[in-house]
Amino acid sequence: MADQHDVLDDSAAVMPFPAQTPPAPYYAVIFSSARTDGDNGYGAMADRMVELARDMPGFLGIESVRDELAGAQGRPGITVSYWSSLEAIREWKNQSEHLAAQKMGREQWYASYHLRIAKVEYDYGFVR
Amino acid sequence: MADQHDVLDDSAAVMPFPAQTPPAPYYAVIFSSARTDGDNGYGAMADRMVELARDMPGFLGIESVRDELAGAQGRPGITVSYWSSLEAIREWKNQSEHLAAQKMGREQWYASYHLRIAKVEYDYGFVR
Repeated sequence: MADQHDVLDDSAAVMPFPAQTPPAPYYAVIFSSARTDGDNGYGAMADRMVELARDMPGFLGIESVRDELAGAQGRPGITVSYWSSLEAIREWKNQSEHLAAQKMGREQWYASYHLRIAKVEYDYGFVR
Repeated sequence: MADQHDVLDDSAAVMPFPAQTPPAPYYAVIFSSARTDGDNGYGAMADRMVELARDMPGFLGIESVRDELAGAQGRPGITVSYWSSLEAIREWKNQSEHLAAQKMGREQWYASYHLRIAKVEYDYGFVR
């Protein structure tokens, strides 16, 4: 839509923001994270993960925002990806490159994170 | 927790990030928005909304991140608030000051937004 914004934090991949999802129900993976200092290969890997996720079965969309200015507070970020089913989420979690990225995340990139899997029951949008 | 980060975008209110929520199930309101230019009273109202939400029955936590650097792309932000029930979400939606803020959001602050209500079925966290 012309009135919507194409943006993705940490990524060259252009995705609509807010994500344009089909009618509910569908699933959301809410990933809230605080980054460690420096890049350490994170940006390139984040781009690659979006590329990979888009090609997974059941992928519906992704929204990602990080506040790079809140440096003293660990650069908080929220990424929400949307999926057609729990099975699609499971397949994505177990994708081989994604597994390697998850390991790097725990070893290097994240000071902390919390991941929540949720079923979207109702939604609505507004465009000026 | 000492290892977690206290941060809230656009707000003087200090909340833990990621939010410390009770065991699932509980509900999430995922609010993805792109801001219009300027502040126009948004920051102060955002602070006030967090203060009010914290005092509502069934409030469990809130995480909010905005990328102020992505100016050309509408300053995307994601706020996720967590609630014990759909009834608690409904009461918050209809809180009088919050209703006034929602109206201002549509009239002034947001270029676009999408709101999703989701039931968190499973979650886990990581702290370095």
